[in-house]
Amino acid sequence: MQENTVQDTLGAFVPGPIIQRAPHSSGPLSGLSFAVKDLFDVAGGVTGCGNPDWAATHEAAKADAWAVDTLLGAGAALTGKTITDEISLGLLGINKFYGTPLNPRAPDRVPGGSSSGSASAVAGGLVDIALGTDSGGSVRTPASFCGICGLRPTHGRISVAGLMTQAPSFDTVGYFTRDALTFGRVGAVLLGEQIRDALPAEIIIAADCFALADEPVRRALRPVVDRLRDAMAITVSPLAEGELPDWARHQRILQRCEFHDTFRDWIDRVNPRFSSEVAGAFADDGRIASSELASATTFREGASKRLDELLDGRRMLCLPTSPILPISRAARLSDMRAAVHRIVDLTGIAGLTGLPQVSLPVATSGSIPVGLSLIGWRGGDAALVAAARTLAREFSIGQFEELA
Amino acid sequence: MQENTVQDTLGAFVPGPIIQRAPHSSGPLSGLSFAVKDLFDVAGGVTGCGNPDWAATHEAAKADAWAVDTLLGAGAALTGKTITDEISLGLLGINKFYGTPLNPRAPDRVPGGSSSGSASAVAGGLVDIALGTDSGGSVRTPASFCGICGLRPTHGRISVAGLMTQAPSFDTVGYFTRDALTFGRVGAVLLGEQIRDALPAEIIIAADCFALADEPVRRALRPVVDRLRDAMAITVSPLAEGELPDWARHQRILQRCEFHDTFRDWIDRVNPRFSSEVAGAFADDGRIASSELASATTFREGASKRLDELLDGRRMLCLPTSPILPISRAARLSDMRAAVHRIVDLTGIAGLTGLPQVSLPVATSGSIPVGLSLIGWRGGDAALVAAARTLAREFSIGQFEELA
Repeated sequence: MQENTVQDTLGAFVPGPIIQRAPHSSGPLSGLSFAVKDLFDVAGGVTGCGNPDWAATHEAAKADAWAVDTLLGAGAALTGKTITDEISLGLLGINKFYGTPLNPRAPDRVPGGSSSGSASAVAGGLVDIALGTDSGGSVRTPASFCGICGLRPTHGRISVAGLMTQAPSFDTVGYFTRDALTFGRVGAVLLGEQIRDALPAEIIIAADCFALADEPVRRALRPVVDRLRDAMAITVSPLAEGELPDWARHQRILQRCEFHDTFRDWIDRVNPRFSSEVAGAFADDGRIASSELASATTFREGASKRLDELLDGRRMLCLPTSPILPISRAARLSDMRAAVHRIVDLTGIAGLTGLPQVSLPVATSGSIPVGLSLIGWRGGDAALVAAARTLAREFSIGQFEELA
Repeated sequence: MQENTVQDTLGAFVPGPIIQRAPHSSGPLSGLSFAVKDLFDVAGGVTGCGNPDWAATHEAAKADAWAVDTLLGAGAALTGKTITDEISLGLLGINKFYGTPLNPRAPDRVPGGSSSGSASAVAGGLVDIALGTDSGGSVRTPASFCGICGLRPTHGRISVAGLMTQAPSFDTVGYFTRDALTFGRVGAVLLGEQIRDALPAEIIIAADCFALADEPVRRALRPVVDRLRDAMAITVSPLAEGELPDWARHQRILQRCEFHDTFRDWIDRVNPRFSSEVAGAFADDGRIASSELASATTFREGASKRLDELLDGRRMLCLPTSPILPISRAARLSDMRAAVHRIVDLTGIAGLTGLPQVSLPVATSGSIPVGLSLIGWRGGDAALVAAARTLAREFSIGQFEELA
């Protein structure tokens, strides 16, 4: 029997029987606890995906998801499954069926989503590590909103085996920690690579991304960016002069096409209940003309090529994780929709191009967390995690806490 | 304390504490029990309207709805509140939150809605009378599907005080009974008029409405229509040569505009959960160009004038209540949507023009009920109820059961 139990004071865990697992063996994560978004299979339980009608129409998982198995094999103990936005659709962390997890750093604000409970549990100290998923910003947004570290890896870099599919060409497995040292330890396990302290040859400050952010976000991040400029090889440059909204638009078109394909038959068969927020994603049948799809795909290839050339195995792109602060938990639906639209303006960059991105808890606006992001080159996930850890250590950017 | 209790073997009543009321006094309905759709206020309880987020965001009713008060005053006892399609939107009777009431006459088929629980409770003998509402077919459809009598009155004829608003220029208060005699007794109370046995001077068989119906519906109704033709002054004539789909289209446009106006702010404030069926009604924001609204309103006036001239205080229009049989309870969402579209092709006639309509349980297809409808002239509700009762008595059309 595992020893860890948890008092869920944050409403971060899925209601009902708690699913816990002892580590398979001792390893590099021994002594650490983790939670897993209820989008990952844990053998013996139904993967509920944040929606009761999904839970009621799916069988219990037969095996653990690859990422769960890997953390258990590295010595971490599974403490429970966390609430997700319904069927992973949402960036705010609102769940009308199971409750919206608390943002421990900003209790009257949303935690961000869709990996909401995972971020909440890590930020509130219920667990050391949590697994999340990120298709359109679902790790990065809650990492920023809850003031913790989060990785969205290169698309395809970490196995999605045992994960609910949303939009296959966007879906990634990510994770959260509170501090940069643990962030590195977990990265080494999930990436299967050593994390060597190192900084990229150059950091590009994406001026157009900063320009899209609200003034409180820019103001909060300015001192950190100034410190980077004093200490490193830094270029300030627009990423896609005037074209960022078009990048985000293509993220929306393509992700939407894919998740409609994923869920269309289930919705038709089950007539599931959704919050109005999520139902809005299915307002039409999601079919677009093949010419529109082809043109969006070509656009995506061009954007990916542009970033591959720019980053070239040696540069990282620095941008605000979110252009807005977390909105109120009591926000109206129209404000929620506007907020999600704004967030995707920036999360769509790595989403569309499949690149890895870390969000680091480097600043606050008042007491509200503001995350800073680095986008790395394709496959440069270990270098990105290393950069995050090194920045934390060398420049006191982000929390850094030696573990006993 | 009232004596009546009910064993809800049909899933027709709203789950939770049962709301019952003894009659205010003895009267013409003494000894009869009634149920009321959970869209009507009963003082002291929340009017839940078939959706948990509606229930959670509204206060307990302070007074009984006019129709509830009137039945209690006439000696009937209130036995409970019945399940409705969510916020009255739906014609099939499916409710994903509280369950879909059983259709006692066709247990594997939907009961029809949105006054689903009311029709189920009457058809299954749990109560003698039930109140429902009808904006687009919500009394007529379940009356037909469950094999009972149902009235949708002239718009404005029965007070909607204490009723949840859906689409104000369409909303009406209707009712169900199993037999034509009780149908007359309740009509006399709610209409405040004597119901004199009488038939209209002429009945017009709406050939184009019959042509829209599926073959099993037409085949089931043919013997009854043949009997009418032998016994009464009958004309067989198309109602709106080739234009019926256009009537239904205008019903949909105008009703939709109005219910969007009704629910828009609440949805924006609450982000309510809906089944996908109902969420589809809010797929866009419901705003249409004022020119389109004006043209639809003009069309509506023309259709109303056409029927006022045709019926002229002396003719009634005969048509199938529904062009289709009740669909399977396990139908897919796309089939549900197609079915609702078909139903409105016929229910939209009285809906658009505000005329009264009765559905009578005159036939079956196999064992599945098939309702026949009469549309009366504007304000001729008592004459319409009288015609229904007289047809039942004179021609054994519809059940007729002398009460002790």
